Amino acid sequence: MEKIFVETTSHTEFLEITSEVEKIVKNSKVKDGICFLYVPHTTASLFINENADPSVRKDIENYLLKLIPEKGNYQHLEGNSASHIRSTLLGSSLSIPLENGSLLLGTWQGIYFAEFDGPRRREVWVKIIKD
Amino acid sequence: MEKIFVETTSHTEFLEITSEVEKIVKNSKVKDGICFLYVPHTTASLFINENADPSVRKDIENYLLKLIPEKGNYQHLEGNSASHIRSTLLGSSLSIPLENGSLLLGTWQGIYFAEFDGPRRREVWVKIIKD
Amino acid sequence: MEKIFVETTSHTEFLEITSEVEKIVKNSKVKDGICFLYVPHTTASLFINENADPSVRKDIENYLLKLIPEKGNYQHLEGNSASHIRSTLLGSSLSIPLENGSLLLGTWQGIYFAEFDGPRRREVWVKIIKD
Repeated sequence: MEKIFVETTSHTEFLEITSEVEKIVKNSKVKDGICFLYVPHTTASLFINENADPSVRKDIENYLLKLIPEKGNYQHLEGNSASHIRSTLLGSSLSIPLENGSLLLGTWQGIYFAEFDGPRRREVWVKIIKD
Repeated sequence: MEKIFVETTSHTEFLEITSEVEKIVKNSKVKDGICFLYVPHTTASLFINENADPSVRKDIENYLLKLIPEKGNYQHLEGNSASHIRSTLLGSSLSIPLENGSLLLGTWQGIYFAEFDGPRRREVWVKIIKD
Repeated sequence: MEKIFVETTSHTEFLEITSEVEKIVKNSKVKDGICFLYVPHTTASLFINENADPSVRKDIENYLLKLIPEKGNYQHLEGNSASHIRSTLLGSSLSIPLENGSLLLGTWQGIYFAEFDGPRRREVWVKIIKD
């Protein structure tokens, strides 16, 4: 299993990791299969969406911040319940098909690490499953 | 990898694709494993839910349209930010167990393609992973 | 494929199943791969989040109950549309990496079964995919 290390610089932040994942896929020499990504954190997630216009990510981020308010009637005393809820909604793993030794993403798709309780040093674990 | 082609006819639409997926599983002759489905689009998703009463899908659709309003304080100029947010919440892939050469769905489960920015011609990619 | 049986005692309830999953992983004798979990129900889900402070789960639960109200302008006559919507948002499967014959979860992560229409007897299906 390979690891991608991510340094986030804000409380909430979406960082594209497509090229780091692609590098691991190339090094694995696996031609066909699935690339499985896993986040071992409880206040961070992964998602796939548009990588052309950055305003799309900004709209997704703003929406999530508004939908799950930072302050609320939360019981958890650490003050980061909103971060746990956001990461639960987006989930902790992704799978992407591989063909001819490359990630098979759609034309407009990029892979994003979603930080919901930064800034922190984070990890994304990568496993390549052969067909 | 196999492809399912989907023609959507509305802006938002949930289309059942269970029988198309089952056909690909049968043709693969794989007995046990996982069927992996992937949507290469950034304004469409996949989900599994009830296939008996169609009003369940209608309730899910109406809820998502209300939760993520079509018009909002969005930055993305193409006007389809709500479609990107909806597809980010539902995700871009599904995995379903296979046994004895068939999809192993629960009694009430069907596989749905979720169009959030139609009408369009769309694709679902299917990969069968052997045990 | 192995099965975990879950007895829920409330309408909405999050039950930790990490140790049951770990037991199946150990028995499988598989050293490296992915543990795939699947819920064959349309009003229940799986998620991964913090297993240290139980108030985190309570905050996630309270948030979902408020976000998707029990009573609404729903068409489905069985009265459990909110349960279907909640399970659609959280999804019906999880994948977790395996290494050295163990689940490779993050320090604070636990695996949860999310009941949204209990009390009921439920199943979680487990498949171990070798590397």
